[in-house]
Amino acid sequence: MTTLQENAETPQVAVVIGLGAMGMGMALSLKKAGFDVIGVDISADAVSRFVQAGGRSASSIAEAAREADIVVSVVVNAAQTENVLFGTGGIADVMRPGSVFISSATMDPAVAGKLSSQLETRAVHYLDAPISGGAARAANGELTVMASGTKAAFSAARRALDAMAAKVYELGDTAGAGAAFKMINQLLAGVHIAAACEAITLAAKMGLDLDKVYEVITASAGNSWMFENRIPHVLAGDYTPLSAIEIFVKDLGIIQDMARSERYPVPLSAAALQMYLAASGAGMGRDDDSSLARLYAQLSGASLPEKTR
Amino acid sequence: MTTLQENAETPQVAVVIGLGAMGMGMALSLKKAGFDVIGVDISADAVSRFVQAGGRSASSIAEAAREADIVVSVVVNAAQTENVLFGTGGIADVMRPGSVFISSATMDPAVAGKLSSQLETRAVHYLDAPISGGAARAANGELTVMASGTKAAFSAARRALDAMAAKVYELGDTAGAGAAFKMINQLLAGVHIAAACEAITLAAKMGLDLDKVYEVITASAGNSWMFENRIPHVLAGDYTPLSAIEIFVKDLGIIQDMARSERYPVPLSAAALQMYLAASGAGMGRDDDSSLARLYAQLSGASLPEKTR
Repeated sequence: MTTLQENAETPQVAVVIGLGAMGMGMALSLKKAGFDVIGVDISADAVSRFVQAGGRSASSIAEAAREADIVVSVVVNAAQTENVLFGTGGIADVMRPGSVFISSATMDPAVAGKLSSQLETRAVHYLDAPISGGAARAANGELTVMASGTKAAFSAARRALDAMAAKVYELGDTAGAGAAFKMINQLLAGVHIAAACEAITLAAKMGLDLDKVYEVITASAGNSWMFENRIPHVLAGDYTPLSAIEIFVKDLGIIQDMARSERYPVPLSAAALQMYLAASGAGMGRDDDSSLARLYAQLSGASLPEKTR
Repeated sequence: MTTLQENAETPQVAVVIGLGAMGMGMALSLKKAGFDVIGVDISADAVSRFVQAGGRSASSIAEAAREADIVVSVVVNAAQTENVLFGTGGIADVMRPGSVFISSATMDPAVAGKLSSQLETRAVHYLDAPISGGAARAANGELTVMASGTKAAFSAARRALDAMAAKVYELGDTAGAGAAFKMINQLLAGVHIAAACEAITLAAKMGLDLDKVYEVITASAGNSWMFENRIPHVLAGDYTPLSAIEIFVKDLGIIQDMARSERYPVPLSAAALQMYLAASGAGMGRDDDSSLARLYAQLSGASLPEKTR
């Protein structure tokens, strides 16, 4: 990470829109790297926590964006991103020429391409930059970013990317490629969580020692990053949301829509999406995505570990 | 690995039934560790290769089993295992009291339990011992074994296990537990291969750089052991079978049957099984299991890399 003060320049102004688990960490990472950071969120509480940590606030996103060199949008989906840019009080028409909009929401690549065109006609750069890594890595400036956009967009965003990410994949000069790579990752992640929950709860139904199952599987060909990461929540009986069921209702939903318009069949993703929908419908939408295990248990009478403390 | 000669005893006689990719390696590992090994296979060619490598042959499995301390059964499924033991010319009634039958076929845990009871009433031990690791590790005596059985069965099998395996999981004193752990692993492995093929071919359909997809995914939360291991076959366009489509037609079929009798829903495994069945039906049953990618390509018009040499 380069601190801007080293360059003895006026700090660049970075606006972070969305101070949730990821956005707050990213805003603080930018602050730490020497940016003058304005945080914006619909939650006044989130904004005041950011101000207490040394950040600035603004009365509206437009007011904040007017003075920004860099806007980092950490909202949930394409609709919110479009609203930030082109909704009532949106920022597309107030951002300065040469500034850059870094969009981290997971979305359909076609939408990312459209938003990019709309901004570039205003001489504002658009970097398609979905993120992965979770809240802890966001707070440490160690995210992974799957980015695509023009050379000019990368150049304008470079210092902010360096402040927020441990690894930036440069995936081409067209907005949409970053989004596409992220969707491929989400397809696999969503299916693997569902498979992990299907397997561990079947093991419970068969009366196997689940800690032993975890030990054997994580050392075997059946392992996945998600099995290794999520099954400890099930073993602890702790479904406090680190990443919620609704995230995959959204992301596998985007996969379905994309694949349908591409005339591409996705039977695995489709089966997984139905399980996330069922978990959400059964009242677990805001719980941890490992709650699929609880759904399988409800559907089969299997017993899973309960939270002990 | 302990070599028996160190103990200055007459070498133990080990019979290996099934000299395929796995069985041949296991037989040679036993030989290397000092066992007097008899190899049996329906293929005369496989037997003669084993004899050229210093092994012994026999005129029938019964003749071989009569003098065995240890029988290692490396056949494909429960039906073949039952046939080896109780079919015409089967070995259950000729094995010596105190000898051990090590069964490595992947099968329904209930069947493993039944076979064990039938042998133990004859004072022959049964070790439920499914294997994983592939042909290369079999040849090097570095398999993973998921084993369960009585203390006496483990004790009788110990030296052979040490010769064949780098890691032996001891999963309880009841035959069936090893089989159950193996089925949980196969559920995950089968779903992960299908998900990997669904994802990489969707990436191809979207026109992404597939080598870059492999690089990004293997460093991201969407990774799995199977994605990392199988997708290189797709990138090379090389579907020479290392493990065939039919293996998962079998193993996910066992999962379906088990889960149905447990009244446990397995939507992910069910979707994956349909894809393996479709690949088999389309003529790829004996090709590498990564051929699911070719199936997705056929179903969607996506272009995958072709073999270059």
